[in-house]
Amino acid sequence: MTYHTFTESKLRDFTRSIFEKMGCSAEHADLAADVLIKSDLRGIDSHGVARLTGYVRLWEKGRINAKPDIKIVHETPTTATVDGDAGLGLVVAPFAMKVAIEKAEKYGSGWVSVRNSNHFGIAGYHTMMAVEKDMIGFAMTNASPLVAPTFANERLLGTNPMCYAFPAGKYPPVIVDMATSAAANGKLEIAQRMGKPVPEGWIQDANGNPSVDPHELKKGGSLLPLGSDRDHGSHKGFGLSATVDILSAVLSGANYGPWVPPFVAFMEPSSDPVGKGIGHFLGAMRVDGFRPIDEFKSHLDNWIERFSSAKPINEEQKVIIPGQPELQAEIERRKHGIPLIEEVCNDLNEIACKFGLQKLRD
Amino acid sequence: MTYHTFTESKLRDFTRSIFEKMGCSAEHADLAADVLIKSDLRGIDSHGVARLTGYVRLWEKGRINAKPDIKIVHETPTTATVDGDAGLGLVVAPFAMKVAIEKAEKYGSGWVSVRNSNHFGIAGYHTMMAVEKDMIGFAMTNASPLVAPTFANERLLGTNPMCYAFPAGKYPPVIVDMATSAAANGKLEIAQRMGKPVPEGWIQDANGNPSVDPHELKKGGSLLPLGSDRDHGSHKGFGLSATVDILSAVLSGANYGPWVPPFVAFMEPSSDPVGKGIGHFLGAMRVDGFRPIDEFKSHLDNWIERFSSAKPINEEQKVIIPGQPELQAEIERRKHGIPLIEEVCNDLNEIACKFGLQKLRD
Repeated sequence: MTYHTFTESKLRDFTRSIFEKMGCSAEHADLAADVLIKSDLRGIDSHGVARLTGYVRLWEKGRINAKPDIKIVHETPTTATVDGDAGLGLVVAPFAMKVAIEKAEKYGSGWVSVRNSNHFGIAGYHTMMAVEKDMIGFAMTNASPLVAPTFANERLLGTNPMCYAFPAGKYPPVIVDMATSAAANGKLEIAQRMGKPVPEGWIQDANGNPSVDPHELKKGGSLLPLGSDRDHGSHKGFGLSATVDILSAVLSGANYGPWVPPFVAFMEPSSDPVGKGIGHFLGAMRVDGFRPIDEFKSHLDNWIERFSSAKPINEEQKVIIPGQPELQAEIERRKHGIPLIEEVCNDLNEIACKFGLQKLRD
Repeated sequence: MTYHTFTESKLRDFTRSIFEKMGCSAEHADLAADVLIKSDLRGIDSHGVARLTGYVRLWEKGRINAKPDIKIVHETPTTATVDGDAGLGLVVAPFAMKVAIEKAEKYGSGWVSVRNSNHFGIAGYHTMMAVEKDMIGFAMTNASPLVAPTFANERLLGTNPMCYAFPAGKYPPVIVDMATSAAANGKLEIAQRMGKPVPEGWIQDANGNPSVDPHELKKGGSLLPLGSDRDHGSHKGFGLSATVDILSAVLSGANYGPWVPPFVAFMEPSSDPVGKGIGHFLGAMRVDGFRPIDEFKSHLDNWIERFSSAKPINEEQKVIIPGQPELQAEIERRKHGIPLIEEVCNDLNEIACKFGLQKLRD
């Protein structure tokens, strides 16, 4: 595969100008670009600028509102439902997280369920907003149906990620950010490009049989929940994914299960929706609502040290603290730039042409 | 295996009198018995009266305080830390959930981290307290270290369960109650009694190699996180388990990771603890803090109907809604009694003798 490397600032400027051309305000374009670039910096290439063409196509179809009136439609001191007005999830979710943080500042915790939104980028971005305020951050979202519940031969759930983030002291925050499927769709895409089989337990074919063909989804197959099969706890992955779906959508009034509108613009959303757009769930809790922040941080540091120094199976592979590999990627990529595969560069050049902007590369 | 079947009320009376003999107040004995019996009714035999001898042994060692002064030691309007004063988790956790519910009644949500507690029974019991009030319930606890993080050859985490519960309308509540390990310890115990191998992916041996021997834990092996291996997402199971550990213990001031005191009385707790007892985390959110309760319930009913009627892989095995099998067991066992294996009956008879009580059976 051919890669081209770009500085963070070049990619950021490019991304921002695309969002501005879509009609986003400067503030929204800035924020949306920040979410995507953060993903690329952190090495989560599937959720960064590679998605930009996807957002543009949804906007062209009228499924993304570039000038949304995002607002709270229901609330108590510590809970709220936000309607994203079909805006970019990249701006709707930070709005909701800000509401959660403000409530937490006043009352100790804040929880916001969001409807009428779109793909919100990496969950970790939103939880880090809480961590910066010495809070614990929660973020979840439902997503286009690709995953079959245990025993089902039908795609009813998205890869529905959950994210939990905790501020540490001398170490970087612990950030658990994970799809509730056995493998994220991005990993499948990599195998497709490489033309390589995937491990058994990631997908099933159109008849519900195990498969190692990464192209199985196009032929009617499904991704499997975390746990892969019943014997290994796939009902738990299904349960977690169900939790994300209910908190994000049944609670907010968004679409859930098979009604979640697809991210890809070439597939039409359900003609019979059960809610509005896709749903998210965001939360923030003040650490000092439970114990003094310095005590918490010093114990979390101790936790990190103990787990980092766990006896490894192989000396070369130590235990990985959740969030650490992403931070390493960020340090590396801030210094040496962000590599994009040629296919993504071409896609980005194409939208640049469409909007009369300078190409990302010639 | 030989089973003996008892009525709910006989087992309940027996259990209550054991707790009273330990010195618990009538109110605490009632509550603790209710938590254990609920577990047996729901078919979770590993967490019911089979555990009673374990609690008695811990009490004999002075590690359970039968007359605890359970109290809030830190709080904001919607958060609190509760110190269980080494009381039975079976009474400490309901105390904490009550605090969470009271906060939620006033402010929309309530969150309680608990230290200085013990094994709290089934997480589902506590979340159902919230569901009865038309709230969403959350419950987690850390536990004796049995699980190795991905890449580690050391037991640093418990089977650390997470539970999420949601009130439905015409259907029973959706209750996701799951260990964050590939298999719960109870399942391993069943295989041990049967002398049967377990599926690969549940445990590793003392060298960190995959094993199917259910006795591996006694020889220095470990349980594996949900996901089983790195390729199938065991780092996600590790991340979830870490989340439970941090919310339950780093946040409350309980012991975490390898410092969590073992449930079995023949193993001594760490001589160098990092906190007090074990930790829990409980939460409640008012559904009507987000949308009217009737709207939520009717959509959750719709969710349940859609998932229940998903196209199955085999016609004989439909999709299971989380919480449904436990409810079926409860209906069945309320009617036909609770079966206990002979081994458990003998253990219970032994403690009856010790306390000068009538045997459960002759």
